[in-house]
Parts: sequence; C-alpha cells; structure tokens
Amino acid sequence: MGTTPRPLVGVKPSNSLLLLAFLLTFVLVGSRGESNAMDNVATERMAEESHRQDSANLLIFIMLLTLTILTIWLFKHRRFRFLHETGLAMIYGLLVGVILRFGVHVPQSMSDLVLSCAVNASPATLLVNVSGRFYEYTLKGEVSRSKGHQVQDDEMLRKVTFDPEVFFNILLPPIIFHAGYSLKRRHFFRNIGSILAYAFMGTVISCFVIGLIMYGFVSFMKVVGQLAGDFYFTDCLFFGAIVSATDPVTVLAIFNELKVDVDLYALLFGESVLNDAVAIVLSSSIVAYQPAGDNSHSFEAMAMLKSFGIFLGVFSGSFALGVATGVMTALISFHMLRDFPLLETALFFLMSWSTFLLAEACGFTGVVAVLFCGITQAHYTYNNLSPESQDRTKQLFELLNFLAENFIFSYMGLTLFSFQSHVFNPMFIIGAFVAVFLGRAANIYPLSFLLNLGRKNKIRSNFQHVMMFAGLRGAMTFALSIRDTATYARQMMFSTTLLIVFFTVWICGGGTMPMLVCLIFTVTFLSSFRVGVDSDQENASSAVLDGSQRRNTKHESAWPFRMWYNFDHNYLKPLLTHSGPPLTATLPACCGPLARCLTSPQAYENEGQLHDDDSDFILNDASVSSMFADVTVSTDASGSHTVNRKRSSTASTGGGPWDEGLDHELAQAENEVAIRGTRLVLWTTIILNVNALCKVRYCNWRAPQAHGLLKSGEINM
Amino acid sequence: MGTTPRPLVGVKPSNSLLLLAFLLTFVLVGSRGESNAMDNVATERMAEESHRQDSANLLIFIMLLTLTILTIWLFKHRRFRFLHETGLAMIYGLLVGVILRFGVHVPQSMSDLVLSCAVNASPATLLVNVSGRFYEYTLKGEVSRSKGHQVQDDEMLRKVTFDPEVFFNILLPPIIFHAGYSLKRRHFFRNIGSILAYAFMGTVISCFVIGLIMYGFVSFMKVVGQLAGDFYFTDCLFFGAIVSATDPVTVLAIFNELKVDVDLYALLFGESVLNDAVAIVLSSSIVAYQPAGDNSHSFEAMAMLKSFGIFLGVFSGSFALGVATGVMTALISFHMLRDFPLLETALFFLMSWSTFLLAEACGFTGVVAVLFCGITQAHYTYNNLSPESQDRTKQLFELLNFLAENFIFSYMGLTLFSFQSHVFNPMFIIGAFVAVFLGRAANIYPLSFLLNLGRKNKIRSNFQHVMMFAGLRGAMTFALSIRDTATYARQMMFSTTLLIVFFTVWICGGGTMPMLVCLIFTVTFLSSFRVGVDSDQENASSAVLDGSQRRNTKHESAWPFRMWYNFDHNYLKPLLTHSGPPLTATLPACCGPLARCLTSPQAYENEGQLHDDDSDFILNDASVSSMFADVTVSTDASGSHTVNRKRSSTASTGGGPWDEGLDHELAQAENEVAIRGTRLVLWTTIILNVNALCKVRYCNWRAPQAHGLLKSGEINM
Repeated sequence: MGTTPRPLVGVKPSNSLLLLAFLLTFVLVGSRGESNAMDNVATERMAEESHRQDSANLLIFIMLLTLTILTIWLFKHRRFRFLHETGLAMIYGLLVGVILRFGVHVPQSMSDLVLSCAVNASPATLLVNVSGRFYEYTLKGEVSRSKGHQVQDDEMLRKVTFDPEVFFNILLPPIIFHAGYSLKRRHFFRNIGSILAYAFMGTVISCFVIGLIMYGFVSFMKVVGQLAGDFYFTDCLFFGAIVSATDPVTVLAIFNELKVDVDLYALLFGESVLNDAVAIVLSSSIVAYQPAGDNSHSFEAMAMLKSFGIFLGVFSGSFALGVATGVMTALISFHMLRDFPLLETALFFLMSWSTFLLAEACGFTGVVAVLFCGITQAHYTYNNLSPESQDRTKQLFELLNFLAENFIFSYMGLTLFSFQSHVFNPMFIIGAFVAVFLGRAANIYPLSFLLNLGRKNKIRSNFQHVMMFAGLRGAMTFALSIRDTATYARQMMFSTTLLIVFFTVWICGGGTMPMLVCLIFTVTFLSSFRVGVDSDQENASSAVLDGSQRRNTKHESAWPFRMWYNFDHNYLKPLLTHSGPPLTATLPACCGPLARCLTSPQAYENEGQLHDDDSDFILNDASVSSMFADVTVSTDASGSHTVNRKRSSTASTGGGPWDEGLDHELAQAENEVAIRGTRLVLWTTIILNVNALCKVRYCNWRAPQAHGLLKSGEINM
Repeated sequence: MGTTPRPLVGVKPSNSLLLLAFLLTFVLVGSRGESNAMDNVATERMAEESHRQDSANLLIFIMLLTLTILTIWLFKHRRFRFLHETGLAMIYGLLVGVILRFGVHVPQSMSDLVLSCAVNASPATLLVNVSGRFYEYTLKGEVSRSKGHQVQDDEMLRKVTFDPEVFFNILLPPIIFHAGYSLKRRHFFRNIGSILAYAFMGTVISCFVIGLIMYGFVSFMKVVGQLAGDFYFTDCLFFGAIVSATDPVTVLAIFNELKVDVDLYALLFGESVLNDAVAIVLSSSIVAYQPAGDNSHSFEAMAMLKSFGIFLGVFSGSFALGVATGVMTALISFHMLRDFPLLETALFFLMSWSTFLLAEACGFTGVVAVLFCGITQAHYTYNNLSPESQDRTKQLFELLNFLAENFIFSYMGLTLFSFQSHVFNPMFIIGAFVAVFLGRAANIYPLSFLLNLGRKNKIRSNFQHVMMFAGLRGAMTFALSIRDTATYARQMMFSTTLLIVFFTVWICGGGTMPMLVCLIFTVTFLSSFRVGVDSDQENASSAVLDGSQRRNTKHESAWPFRMWYNFDHNYLKPLLTHSGPPLTATLPACCGPLARCLTSPQAYENEGQLHDDDSDFILNDASVSSMFADVTVSTDASGSHTVNRKRSSTASTGGGPWDEGLDHELAQAENEVAIRGTRLVLWTTIILNVNALCKVRYCNWRAPQAHGLLKSGEINM
C-alpha cells in the first residue's frame, strides 16, 4: 500500500496493467545535455517527495488505528459501552476527514500545459519519450470528465484515498476468512437449512424488494426533476444487492459480548456471513446483465438467464475452490508438518491466501472462496494442527481481522469528507432508509414464518425482532459501493450507503444491547430466548453427558444435516483429520486394505471413546468477551442461580473445552425440553460480576452504567 | 502487491505519484457512439484479464513458498542438512525462473503504433483523453532506451518481476525488525564495543577496500576493452557498500542450529545486524555524492563532506526515531492495555510499523529505524507485555520474518533468469569475488587484532576464521542492488551481486557447519571455542549463582557498557517497564515525590530480590533449534559429560528461563576462567541424541548423515 515506484528504476513492476504496451514517441522539446541531468535530479526529487507523502498518508491511518486502540482500551477500562469499537473508529476517521478537508491546504504546483497527440485506445502501459529518456506510465483507471478541471483543489484529499481494490484484495479477505474460521460449526450445521434460506432466498428477496422500492423512488424523483443523471432499474437492483449484505463482524462483537443463545447467534452469524458471499456474487451478476442491442437497460430474458447462470457458476466455483484448498491443507497437515508450528502456521496462511488468488485468477470471487476455505479449515485442518499452531493461527487471523476491520471503519469515517464526488440527494436517502428497513423485514418475517413450519425449534417472534434489528451494514457493503463510483448513479449510491452504514453501526449497533436488555424483561421473551447460557458454568455438567443425548441432538436436526453429518463423520473426518473413528470401522469390509492404509494411527485410539468432535469450536468466546468481561447476563435452564466468575483475558487462549461444555449443556437442556414438554419455568438471573475487577491493578474503577438497571432487574424478580 | 486498479473506477488511488498532474488532450481518433461503448467493454475486459494475470503471478510465488515449506519439512524430517532452507528457496526460484524463461511463451497482442505529441518533462500523472473518456496514468519509472524494442519478448517475465521498492517497503522491515527484536541483548551489550567497531569501521573498511580493488579491475577492463559502458569510482564504492552487508538471517539460522558459544554468536549476529544498517546508509550517502560543475565524477572535498554529513544525519536520525517509537510503545504498554492481548499485540505491531513510515516520511531510512525500534521494544516494551502478548508478538514477527525471508530468497533464484538486463562480465565477477574475500578479511583480521588489545575476553584466531567464513550475503545486499538497475554499471553490479549471494549462501552457508565440526577437532580451538553450551543443561546450576558473580560479569565488560548499564538499570528500566528497582531507591532523595509518582507498583516487589533482568532474552533458541533438534554438539565447561535431552518443538514457546540459565552459567564459567587462569582442560562430548525421535509418529526414520562423522569423532577422543 505504501509502496511507490521510483523513477530511474529499470526493472519492471508486475503491476503494469496489460499485455499491450504502446510506444508514444513524443516530440522532443528542450535542449539535451545539462537540462537532461537537471530533469533527472528533479524527477528523483519529485519521486522522493511523493514517497514521503505516501508514507505520511499511510501514517495517518496507522495513527488513527493506534488512537482507536487506545480509546477502545479506555472504554473497556472505564466500562463505557454505549458505542462499539467500530463506531469509534468511524468517528475518528470522520474527525480526520474534517481536518483534511477544511484544515489542510497544500499549495499546488500545477502547470496547465495542454499537449496534444493522437491515440485511439487506452493502452495499459504508455512509454513516454522525454528528451531522450523513456518513462513508463501505467493505466490507473478512468476518471470523470470534469476531473481535469477539479484537479487543483483536491490533491491532498486524493492522496489519502486508497485504491478501492485494496479493500477487495487486502482488507476484506482476512475479515471474511476469520468469520469463516471462527464459525461455531456445530450450531451452524444444525441450523444450516434456515441459514441457507435466510442467506440465499432472504438476500435475493431483500435485493429485489429494495430494488423495486428504490425504482419507485427514483421514478418519482425523475418526475419531480430531482435526478441529475441516469438511474436505471439495474442500478436499483445493484443498490439492493450491496445494502443487503449484513455485517458479521459487528454482529459477532455485540452478541459475543452478551453471550446470547447459541442458536440465535448461529442463525444471525451464519446468515450474515453467507449473506456477504451472496451479495457480492449477486451484485456482480447484476453488473454482468447486459442485454444486446440498442436499448441496453430494457428487460431481456436471455441476458437475465445469463446473469443467473453467472451467479450460479461464480458462486459454486468459488465454493468448490475454497473447499478444495481447505481440504488440500487438511491433507498436507494430516500427513506432514506436525511438530513444526512455524511451518504449519506459514503453510496454513499461504494456502488460505492462495485460495483467494486462485479464485481471482480463475475469474471466481476470491472473497467467497476464502469464506468457504475458512469454514473447511476450521472443520478439518484445525484438528490436525498441533496445539501451538491452533493458537497461532487463531491469534494471527484474529489480529489481521481486528486491524483490517478497524482500518475499514476508520476509512469509512474519513471518506465522508475526503471523497470528492459525493451526491447527497435527500429524497434518495429517505427512500433508501425506508427500502432497507422494508427489505430486511421482507427477508426476516416471511422467511421465519415459512421456516417455522418445518422447524422443531421454532424461531420466536422476539428472535425475529432481534434479527431484524441486528442487520447492521458494514465493511462488505462499503467495499462493494466504493468499488465503482464512476457514474452519477453509483456516486449517489455510495454516499447513501455511507449514511446507511453510519446509521446502522451507531444507532442499531449501539442500540442492540439496550434493546436486548429491554426485551429480557418481557416474560414471553424469556421463555424463548436464553440469554447468557455462559460457557464457564457448564464444565461440570459435561461429564454427565452420554452418547444417547448427543445422538438425540443430531436427530433433532434437519435431514440434510443428518446425512451430511454421517458422511462427514464416517468418511471425511477419518480421511482428512486425526480425529473421528478409523476408516476400518466405517468402510465396508471389502475396502479393508485401503481403509487400513488411509487411517491415521491416532484414529484407532479414538475408536474406544468415539469422541464426537463436532463440538470442538474455533470461536473463542472468552477472548472476545474478556474485553467486556465484567457483566454477564445469565439464565440457567435448570432453574438454579449461577454466579459466573469470569476469567480475565489470560483465559482467552483455551476457549475450546468450555465451548464444548457449553455445547453439551445445550444438548442436555434441549433434551430436557423435549422430554418435559415445552412449558418450563425459567429463572432469570442477571448477575453483575465485579470480581473480574480484582485482577486489575486499579480497584477504584467506576461501576458500569448498567449496574443500577440490572441490579433492579434482579430485585424485581 | 496483487492489487490492480481497474479502469472505470472514479475514486483516485493514493499511489498516484506526484503533486503535478498534466492534462494531455489527445487528438480524438475514431468515431464516437458505438465504438465508445465497445472500447469501454474492451478496457474492462483487459483490466480483468490483467487482474487475473497478476493474481496468477502472485500465486506462483505463494506456490513456491508452499513448496519450500514442504521441502524444508522433508529435510528436517529426514535430517538432511547439507543445504539451508534459504538455499532451498533459491533453488526453487531458479527452477521456476528457467521454466518461465524458456518454457512459457505467451502470445503477444502487440501493436506498434507510434504516436507523437509534445512534452518537455515527465509528470507523475498523465490524464489521457481517448475518444472523450479520460484515463489516468501514473509514472512507473524510467526504462532503458532499448526497452521500447524489446518489449515484445519479455511481457511474461516482466510480469513476475516485482517493483524493487516492494523489498524495501514490505519485505525487509519485518526481517530487520525481527533481527532486532530477537537480539540476545545481554551478550549484545556486553560486546557492544567490538560489535560497533566491526559494524561501523569494519563496514567502511570493507566498502573502501572492495571499492578500490574493483576500481583497479574496472580500470584494467577499460584498458583491455571489456567494458561496454561507464563505470565510475563512485559506482565501485557503491558496489563495495552493498556487498559489505552480511546477512543476519542466515547467520542466525546456522549458528542457532549449532548452539555456538554465545559471545561469538553475539559478535557475529550483532555485527551482521548493524552491518545492514550501516551498509544501507553508506550506499545512500555514496549515491548522494554529487560534486558540482562539469566533471561530476571527480573528487571534491565539499561533496565528500556533505556525503559524510548525510551519513551521520540519516543514521542518527533513524536511530533516534526508532528508539523514540520504541520508548513510546514501552510507555503506552507500561500505563495501559495490559490484560488485553489483542489490543497490546495490535498496538505493538502498529507502532513498529509506524516507525518505518515515520522515518520514511522524515527522509530517514525506515529499515534502520525499524532495527533500533526492534532492539528498544525487546529491551523495554517486552517486559511490560502480558505473557500472552509476549508469545503473540514473538510468533507474529517470527512468521512474518520467515515468509519475507523465504520470499526474497526464492525471488532471488527467479531473478537470475527472469531479469531482463543481466550483464555477466567474467572479469568483473572474478574481481568481485576476490574483492569481497579481501574486503571481509580486511574487516575481520585487523580489527580483531586491534580489539584484542583492549578486550579481556580475546577474540581467538579460530573465532576470526569463523567470522570470516560466516559473512554470508543475503536479503539486504540483494534488495540494495535491485533497487536501481538503470545504468550499465548497476546492471553489471546486480548480476554479480546475485552470483555472490548464491555462492555465499550455497557454499559458505552449506559449508559453515562442516567447517565448525572440522574446527572442533583442533585442540587449540576447543579451548577457545565453546560449541554447544546448551541451554537445557544449565538450569540446575543457575541456582548457585550469586550477585557477586553477576557483578563480576558486568565489570568485565567495556566501560561504555558499564555506564550505560547503570543508567539503564537505575533509571530507564524503572521508568519504562515493570521490572527493575523502584525509582525511589535509585533517584536522589530530593526527587522523592516524582519518583514515587513514576514508579510502578510492581517495581516495589522487585526491590527485595533485585532481579537482574538483562538476562531475559527474546530470542527463542528452542524454536529455531527445534527444527533440527536431534543433533547437539555439546561441550561442557565443567568437564563432565552431559546428555542433552532436547525438548521437541512444543517447548518453543518458553525459551526465556533456559536462556537465563545459559546466561548465568556462562557468567559462572567466565568467572572460573578468570580465577583459574586460561588453561583449562575441556572435555568435548559430541552427542547424537536420537531421543527426540520417539516423540514423532514414525520411528523408522533414517539416521542423520552426520551420524557417522560425529560418532567416529566421539570414538577418536
């Protein structure tokens, strides 16, 4: 990002754009000799100056991130929690944007030399002959027509504006990979049917609902004369696609903080993770919709079918690629590299990165491939890694995710003022907010109704309200909207999207927690919504679990999951990991020699205990929750009050066993529900645990704001 | 690196080079309307094609790295050790280079359109008006004159060639930071005088000796007519500067493997780390040497002085910046962030990165600043971090270092065939090898002689031979030489440098181990060269240590170190870290209130035990040695045979206490030497420990090659 090529370097960069390279022989102007050397020095100086400027720009962002980290710490330290860290990053970005916009005036050394020569296409590389020296230029992209005249004003702001492709090639992949890698797999797969329904059908519904509403608004604006440029139906659909992507990151952070019911969590998180993948492929399919002939924005069945084909092709291709590299990594780590944590971690990182590159090189979507690669890595490869590598990979991607996420959000704040071509249209903005709200509603409520017809474990209406409310828009929506801002329609979309992200992160993100606290006190809600089945307290009960209960859980699940579970457990797990039963036990007798050959020695040890390792999680509840570790809203399904003594951050390395305990406990609780019927009197205990404070140096911290509220809640019951 | 801007994107990238932006209004060629839309689609397709190509190119490198990792594992697994991993990476790079050069032929769609227009300077940004659409081009750099005609042949090869600035801005910083962060600080500071002498005087001597010898060769070549272009004395000096940088990475790996005497290790490692910093500043000072007037390559005192001033200014500026950010990070982590490992690690990473950017933005050398930042972070910040963050930061930079290092070395291999403008001149190459050898000799032997006059703990002649032999050239030399390959002289230097790196890594790197084994059997050597005072065995003896011995060690050191040690221990450590004595004890009584205010509560706990934490190391011996952990060449100073049971890789997280033990043991051993005189009969035990094998799954591994040799060595004694 900070790399600036210097002139006078003869080796060619790989970033040069295309295979074409034109040779423009410019008419030589000026004398040779001395002026040549002078030019040389001047060019060097300009290059050096520019390199410094680039470093300074990147430094601005690093400083922003540092400031955000310190403030996050301060918030955690003082137990403020009305604002999430991503919202904080945005505010800082906003402030810097204001300063850059209105505070800094860089003197411009602009010469308005207008030169003319003949060219009939835009080559990727230009070779310019200046006084006998050749300089190479590479194509950066098209600029808007008015750009040429504006260029004086905005150099400074242009400088801090990154190439939008940076988001897609550098910042999004670690975020999405981390989302996949930290998915709670057991609950994800248990709810796979509902998640897929929300992610695929829901996103498509949301996209079309938003698209149609926006088309109505835009048509009205055209009549009123509020529209200054073209805005087609495909643009409306594109807008629908990009704002349908809900942000897993914010959901993850907020819900982890609250220790929400794992099923609700799995639904929301799974939906918003897959959401992103669907939205990105959907938007590219909409862009690919190009009817032949003159009227290029009319409806045409063939083009529509082609777009649909592209959607299916790109999605399944990316999926297959992601899974393939994941499986390959699992195989490599199955047979090799064990006991060399550095090599394992490096290989893991490289293979995950190569998924992205491979998908991009094949014309699929790298971000989508990375998501499924992450899920596969978590499901198979993770089991093969040495304990140290498990920690290392978790920590590495946690860090990358943290940095990338905060970078994007602070950049978002900055963009509000640094972006040059904002088009804020009040009517469009109002329309967009209405459309986004209705689109989300049209996604959640009808689908939940339909899903409830088939689900044993119903999605209650309070569940649905929370899902509706928690649909924040974040990094993916922003990245998709900033990718192309060449036309009037796209610029208006971008500005509006920015406002939607701000609103959802600050208002919805900040409001989710109070809303949950508020909902907790409605009794109907309590019976359906287990807040805070905390992982720490379940350890003891996990020993009680027997195989039949686990099997029970399995049988409660949807049939595709059951089929998948059996296949995965009997064949894939033994083939790809050291866990699971030996293949000799699961394959038919005729495949005996093959099975013996492929089974790992460790698998035989597993045979006796038949360890069900679907329950081992990657997601590190403790590490996220430790940030706000003092308050725990806790309800115990068995009717007893529990005091949660939170481990402080030192506990965050080993989340696995507790999650497993949690999982078993849930299976048990569900079982009880199935046996005793659905009417259970649940005691709610909201416990404010101040014990964690004692571990920290200063003991005179302010008690959390929620203290009074929660305390009174406890007394009321 | 893989980010390619797409056309049709209106937002401006920050990488645009300069403040100037010219507007070239091209004569419009071709009709508007349809052709416009067609152009549009064609440009998009070209951009997409180019993006895929870029992804594929990066993928080549990722695959290379993956292959290298797998082979490294295989080598470790099978206990081959005739080739170091960096040598391996180079071989793979070489193979891919050959394939790309001779195997792949990409059809070129080249049009030789020659256009003409008028321009009298090379602006950073060109705006080209093609059929009414504006495209932005940015300056990539100057290309050689013949380039325009060659361009057809080498597109594919150009594509896999990275911008050389990538090395300086992305790959070198983590390597150099890791070197600084993993420096054995106690031994480094104990030998600081000698290290500085070798690094500063030695590098300058080496640079001038090589420069002079090369000037002789070049003059001779000019007479013979072997020289096809200009080659000035400054070029010779520049060559001398870049090949004087010895590689800490290779030294680190090879010597860690062998568990060499810590003093020799500290000398060699410290020298080669600082070496790099000196060489980079030296080479930029030589480039900055520009006498006024016509004869721009003659001697001029003023220009010379200016260059010297630049050297001092840049070096001290970078040093100050690096230390300043390190201290600032220490202060932040002293007062804040504890108990939030993710935040701590993120801040640590960002502050270290910002050192680089800040130095570059100020016109200093980022890589040098990063080195001193690393040393400062290790000395102060590391003590403030929570244990989890200590692990995380170590592992993070270990991984980054591993990836960057292997990337550079495989890239080096690739460059031998993919670089377009190689100039292999046999006479120059022979001259360079002679000069490099003599330059190294002129650095080591005279300086060692002079240093021995002042040193209590003499540098024996065998020491010196090893230092002479272990001066490998690596990443820094390569990065410096590829940075500028515009002129004939620079191209010849680059090609020659490449060969020198290959030779030293393969021959010297591969030969260091046999050489050490060979030297071990000379008795004089044994008495001066403690190979394998292994960290594991010393644990027991560390309890015997008392304060007087430690103080003894301190008093043996050079006086600048003693002064520094006292100041650091009494004031800086308490001010910046949680370790060290409380300031109330070290500051004069009048500063009481201030001292109480600044001292951390933990420091009072330290007061009783007066813990000397100079001995806590960052460097993780275990993690490096665990890679080749089975063979240990071990000599026990106390005369007893010891069997080293190596911990396998799982032990690599906690290197600290053993290192400390090792350190105390060394202090003790030195003490004995001082008391009993220098004549000690040392027993040498070379132990081949096969126990480590039992931990690994397959027990039928081949015994290592060295087995026979070492075994026979044991019998001979």
